[in-house]
Amino acid sequence: MITSTSNQKVKRILKLQKKAKARAQEGVFLVEGLRMVREVPRKRVIEVYASESFFERHGDILEGLKRITEVVSDKVFEHMSDTKTPQGVLAVVKRQEYLLEEMLKEKEGKKPFLIVLDNLQDPGNLGTIVRTAEGAGVTGIILSRESVDFYQPKTIRSTMGSVYRMPVLYVEDLEETIKKMKGCGIHVYAAHLDDSRYYDEEDYTEGTAFLIGNEGNGLREEISAAADRKIKIPMYGQVESLNAAMAAGILMYEACRQRRK
Amino acid sequence: MITSTSNQKVKRILKLQKKAKARAQEGVFLVEGLRMVREVPRKRVIEVYASESFFERHGDILEGLKRITEVVSDKVFEHMSDTKTPQGVLAVVKRQEYLLEEMLKEKEGKKPFLIVLDNLQDPGNLGTIVRTAEGAGVTGIILSRESVDFYQPKTIRSTMGSVYRMPVLYVEDLEETIKKMKGCGIHVYAAHLDDSRYYDEEDYTEGTAFLIGNEGNGLREEISAAADRKIKIPMYGQVESLNAAMAAGILMYEACRQRRK
Repeated sequence: MITSTSNQKVKRILKLQKKAKARAQEGVFLVEGLRMVREVPRKRVIEVYASESFFERHGDILEGLKRITEVVSDKVFEHMSDTKTPQGVLAVVKRQEYLLEEMLKEKEGKKPFLIVLDNLQDPGNLGTIVRTAEGAGVTGIILSRESVDFYQPKTIRSTMGSVYRMPVLYVEDLEETIKKMKGCGIHVYAAHLDDSRYYDEEDYTEGTAFLIGNEGNGLREEISAAADRKIKIPMYGQVESLNAAMAAGILMYEACRQRRK
Repeated sequence: MITSTSNQKVKRILKLQKKAKARAQEGVFLVEGLRMVREVPRKRVIEVYASESFFERHGDILEGLKRITEVVSDKVFEHMSDTKTPQGVLAVVKRQEYLLEEMLKEKEGKKPFLIVLDNLQDPGNLGTIVRTAEGAGVTGIILSRESVDFYQPKTIRSTMGSVYRMPVLYVEDLEETIKKMKGCGIHVYAAHLDDSRYYDEEDYTEGTAFLIGNEGNGLREEISAAADRKIKIPMYGQVESLNAAMAAGILMYEACRQRRK
């Protein structure tokens, strides 16, 4: 059992909690808590850390992961954890690699249904978008390079497990990616605040991508210009904009509604 | 200028920041930041506090509020503020009182469109719901007594100004309130996870109320039983539920879509 916070393994986990670069270099992310650890596809688990008291109470849940489970004292676990009241278990999980070309193709009779995030910054918003996207039947999420790190603890937590199932891909050149989408027959819609048609007047039953912008500034000019069409969610009262995750959710579920009819 | 954190006025503001009971007794809430203070309807502003440096730079914005503005040192303002990086201005605002009977009536040709929250707990979710509700044309929000305090700083912040415009009412007995709604010809729909029709198969063009439950536990049995009908947002993949604010937003915008047609 590890009892010292200066243990090299403990230090490495702390680094993975805090540094996007360290996570990227190892091609991993961390998940915490009973539910998140239980849902990880076994093949992707690299290591598990359990606090002494978690291991005593719930050790059986880690059956099959024992070989790669390291027990640490409760105090050390608190030190390693990203949460205020840690449940006592975390895992290092291998990232899944996705290819853009695959995401742009029809799969199992399902036309591509993509969410494209231009410089989204809030980790909670990203997590909520990924969770809602799985629910709405989205086939993949594409982010501009400058967007918030999908693999940071807060985002992972708010995906509620969708992190294991939703294809997510960062791209260097979003404009170029949009061109490729259009080349594959995907209709690209920019969620915009003005000068556009209502979102519910379009047909989303073909290949569809929604472009969602940054929380404060919306979409970059050149990105919304690259779309096939601008669409707008009507707003009554004096509301100037909706929360970015909310706007994304409303668009996704309108497409989901149309695709089910 | 107030320069001491032990000043009675400063102590009072701190109490109003932290204690729901103190806010309720005075019938007020606090708003912070340039935008929120600028948007307050003048008649409802009771007092304004500005930091010395805010007052020097933006004093002109407080024109007309000067009589009730108190300048405090930057240090004291930091102490009074609920945010990590305070903008240097906050206001004490009088609550608006709403009557249930008024909320259940048609107004200016608009049929009631209500969101009913049963024991909602997350301040951010409540703020997002209120903001989205204004955008979707909701006419009022009703909360069970045990729900999170609408007037706490985090909720107020996330309403982005909708707090000044959206009628919000806490009720003692939610079951009784639902009966009254039905008595007024309002169709009451319980957002549920199972055993129900899809939300987009119903007609929301008449008086409509959506019941939304607690983040972890959903609606209480007796509350969803009191509704006219249970409705469900379909979910693909392994998603078990959506975030409560997201679910509310999707329902509201479906009703909004139908009402615009």
